[in-house]
Amino acid sequence: MTKAIILVSGGMDSCVTAAIAKAVGDDLSFLHLNYGQRTEKRELKAFHNLADHYEVPANKRLVCSIEHLAAIGGSSLTDKTIEVTAADLENQEIPTSYVPFRNAHILSVGISWAEVNGAKKLYIGAVYEDSSGYPDCRPEYYAAFNEVARLGTAAGDIHIETPIIFLTKEDIIRKGIELNAPLALTWSCYQNEDIACGVCDSCGLRLRGFQRAGLEDPIPYAIRPDYR
Amino acid sequence: MTKAIILVSGGMDSCVTAAIAKAVGDDLSFLHLNYGQRTEKRELKAFHNLADHYEVPANKRLVCSIEHLAAIGGSSLTDKTIEVTAADLENQEIPTSYVPFRNAHILSVGISWAEVNGAKKLYIGAVYEDSSGYPDCRPEYYAAFNEVARLGTAAGDIHIETPIIFLTKEDIIRKGIELNAPLALTWSCYQNEDIACGVCDSCGLRLRGFQRAGLEDPIPYAIRPDYR
Repeated sequence: MTKAIILVSGGMDSCVTAAIAKAVGDDLSFLHLNYGQRTEKRELKAFHNLADHYEVPANKRLVCSIEHLAAIGGSSLTDKTIEVTAADLENQEIPTSYVPFRNAHILSVGISWAEVNGAKKLYIGAVYEDSSGYPDCRPEYYAAFNEVARLGTAAGDIHIETPIIFLTKEDIIRKGIELNAPLALTWSCYQNEDIACGVCDSCGLRLRGFQRAGLEDPIPYAIRPDYR
Repeated sequence: MTKAIILVSGGMDSCVTAAIAKAVGDDLSFLHLNYGQRTEKRELKAFHNLADHYEVPANKRLVCSIEHLAAIGGSSLTDKTIEVTAADLENQEIPTSYVPFRNAHILSVGISWAEVNGAKKLYIGAVYEDSSGYPDCRPEYYAAFNEVARLGTAAGDIHIETPIIFLTKEDIIRKGIELNAPLALTWSCYQNEDIACGVCDSCGLRLRGFQRAGLEDPIPYAIRPDYR
């Protein structure tokens, strides 16, 4: 068995990524990153529920706080010492939720932990279709980061795996069901922690995926608009 | 003027790197990373002293805590939830102070801040001669990370600069003196925060550099062994 770290946010993409790693017979460790997101408490619950489902023991679970990202990337809303330049303000296609270069921080934590615990694979549920123009969701970005991981680690043999990068949300749901992934345990809503709002970007994307697949999303929603 | 971020630990290498950036006419912002190191308080003082010297205003100084690195990389001494494998224990050439993949975390913070504040250069005082086999001090590592920075940022035009990577410690001291770098304000000792011990690895490397250059180190030492 190959030791593998799975980046598990608690959402559907990371759940299906974990299911794929399990299906290929890897020995799973779960890693969760907290960077002060609004629904962190609910996401962390989903992380542990998923880890329980896949029988990941306590010594193979790691939760890391990288809240300095909020200070760096949050503009004047979160850190008054940061000068936000006009160039950034004009950059309309990037939403305010975007943290510049975020995935490099996440991958760095994963590679560091992999080097310490002997894992040879680091799985991330990055999705190219979902990237909305985010530069750090492109396949070539992960290829370049793999080169950094090869050169920047002692053994040089840790590889980043992106098994769902070319799948649509609908494909991801079908794949999850095929692999008996516990989608009911996941959490995607950006807004609420008790019942999914059904209207935020993340709920919309998720509901549309289920609707296009002709399936019922097993989690409770305040409302379920038709997104097809 | 090009906006540039300088990674400033407070030691001599980062001081001379800042002096080089200043000499080429860049507009300087200073970034300091705290990861729970023993002499952090003294290093932070050196950081602010150097920033004062180079007239870096408060809104161009950022101090980030990335203490999660201690939890990840610290083995059983700092995090009992991490399983340390036999493969790591056998890896005798890496000292216990080593944090696996550390520089990727540091560079990621720098690139994120560069993207937010509009900087086009990120300077790091990495030294290949000092690398002691650390994989993340090699020139090819920085070339690979530059590719990640190009692909993983919105504008794709932030470049990592390593101006002293091929210099010896003696060369770095000569360069610093040539550029009037305030070496007396720097701190290198791993052991003490009041008077440099003169015997730790970092003091030894520094003192040897001054001795080989035929110069007097301006900071106070408990003892000054001859390292030539």
